[in-house]
Amino acid sequence: MTRTIRYQLVVVLVIAVASLGFVSQALAQADPLASWNDGAAKQAIVKFVEATTTQGSPKFVPPAERIATFDQDGTLWVEHPMYSQIVYSFDRVPAVVKAKPELANVDPFKTVMSGNREAIAKLSMDDLFKILTATLTGMSMEDFKAEAKKWLDTARDPRWKRPYTELTYLPMQEVLKYLRANGYRTYIVTGGGQDFVRMYAEEVYGIPPEQVVGTASGTKYGYTKAGKPFLTKEPKLLLNDNNAGKPEGIHLMIGRRPYAAFGNSTGDRQMLEYTKAGEGERLAMLVLHDDAQREYAYGPAQGLPTTKVGTFTQALYDQAKREGWIVISMKNDWKRIFSFEP
Amino acid sequence: MTRTIRYQLVVVLVIAVASLGFVSQALAQADPLASWNDGAAKQAIVKFVEATTTQGSPKFVPPAERIATFDQDGTLWVEHPMYSQIVYSFDRVPAVVKAKPELANVDPFKTVMSGNREAIAKLSMDDLFKILTATLTGMSMEDFKAEAKKWLDTARDPRWKRPYTELTYLPMQEVLKYLRANGYRTYIVTGGGQDFVRMYAEEVYGIPPEQVVGTASGTKYGYTKAGKPFLTKEPKLLLNDNNAGKPEGIHLMIGRRPYAAFGNSTGDRQMLEYTKAGEGERLAMLVLHDDAQREYAYGPAQGLPTTKVGTFTQALYDQAKREGWIVISMKNDWKRIFSFEP
Repeated sequence: MTRTIRYQLVVVLVIAVASLGFVSQALAQADPLASWNDGAAKQAIVKFVEATTTQGSPKFVPPAERIATFDQDGTLWVEHPMYSQIVYSFDRVPAVVKAKPELANVDPFKTVMSGNREAIAKLSMDDLFKILTATLTGMSMEDFKAEAKKWLDTARDPRWKRPYTELTYLPMQEVLKYLRANGYRTYIVTGGGQDFVRMYAEEVYGIPPEQVVGTASGTKYGYTKAGKPFLTKEPKLLLNDNNAGKPEGIHLMIGRRPYAAFGNSTGDRQMLEYTKAGEGERLAMLVLHDDAQREYAYGPAQGLPTTKVGTFTQALYDQAKREGWIVISMKNDWKRIFSFEP
Repeated sequence: MTRTIRYQLVVVLVIAVASLGFVSQALAQADPLASWNDGAAKQAIVKFVEATTTQGSPKFVPPAERIATFDQDGTLWVEHPMYSQIVYSFDRVPAVVKAKPELANVDPFKTVMSGNREAIAKLSMDDLFKILTATLTGMSMEDFKAEAKKWLDTARDPRWKRPYTELTYLPMQEVLKYLRANGYRTYIVTGGGQDFVRMYAEEVYGIPPEQVVGTASGTKYGYTKAGKPFLTKEPKLLLNDNNAGKPEGIHLMIGRRPYAAFGNSTGDRQMLEYTKAGEGERLAMLVLHDDAQREYAYGPAQGLPTTKVGTFTQALYDQAKREGWIVISMKNDWKRIFSFEP
């Protein structure tokens, strides 16, 4: 054996051994759902992924059709005591009133400005819609983005004293990654504002803007004085992405029925029904907030009170049991809830 | 050298040589734009792709942001003498009149049923909208798909005697593939019906449903008597994806500004403006129909008459020249037009 050949052989062997090491490492890789306790919920996810992605499986789903949809508030991150976007909208009221002083003495703006929590809690959905419209539309898309970014960078959740964007559930982040690693495209389908959620979804969840479906206002194309085109956010509701609006929004924006859908409230009911009504293996899951110590407890479990947000009614619970949707108990199914806590 | 080692070495060398062969083959691969004559249009496409995808280029665009949008009718396939979807809609009128006999004596249905070409050609946009609404909405999504599929499988273009889905421009198919091979996601952004174009875009262009943005009617979620959920196409216009509606639809459905946009009429003007208004290298191109022999000639070139469809006005031509948009001459820039012709 000449020295050159021997050298080449050594190089080849080193590469081969390194490759084998890599393969065995990949096979023995850490549990992709490490923050989940072993139980029916975790098993359902793994079983679904294996059934739909194993070549030759009778339930195999071609990669192009692998779509999974996730509600955001209460499913991927904390929604209690108030959706972060509502907090943002309320935080913007003073600036809006400053720009339009005539609003200071008009409800619901007067009530918000008063700071009276009891009165604020009693505002109607109509009032809320007026506040959202006044604070989040009627501006260029660039201005909207700049304002939202400023708030997202500085606002803190009152309980954990952290940016809202850090309050995501580690077990759900693992589900997103696990599904994507198996060829699924993960979409957010949220009642929250599409433009708002798109501001952070890529950084926070690895979900790009084109995979965020949300409540959307129309935009209007126009030109600056210098002739440069821009879009203005209009106070016109184009898609109310709640309840029946979720499957309607999924059809509009994706055009395919999901194979897996995750939610946590009656606003997600139709999305889960629509998902399960498809042929083949389909997964529908609901996050139940039953962990008062580590997060919050609300909904029907153990007689807990149902709060205004994220209504997980007894009827939804019963429907889940009847139709084979999996209820995730935060308390029992999740080993860890946040990445920043042990 | 033992026999085993020698054997291993041979295997390794064979693999190495095979790999080298593969690499050199890839480098020497056929021109991805083989149906284009060498000229300003072809060069602009290649220059754009190289500038935006070469690592280290000052105009480099990260893969996640590589979006290219294409008008369909007249840009990717033949639109003359009538958009295929309009033909489909007219073809459905007899079935609609049969189901609702009271329409037989009401215009515009009466005119369509008369078969009087001259009278049909004079129908207004309002009439057209009534016909589209009556023939393409008010049915379940499943029924819509079944009907559309039947028509697409059987209808033939009168000039080429081929399915409409075969009348795509080979040079544009090459652009779609070339962009995708370089990490671009290709979207259709069409004034045509989103649900209709989604029926064939994947098979015809390799463009999946979630990358088709089009004129969209709302849908309504409901249940069959057996309790199975389904969507009904509503006679309610949600997005008019023409003119200013194109950038508005792009924002709604994609949420990113395209780096490249292709059109062929005034309906694409705002999409091209919006694309070019972004920072960095942007490509805007317009297909000019100036080849009466191999396809059709209409628009401002050489004093050709402007037809009702695909209005390429002189003003659009002037704007293209002024703003650095590239006009593609079908006659001069395209070596071949259809894959079924030499």
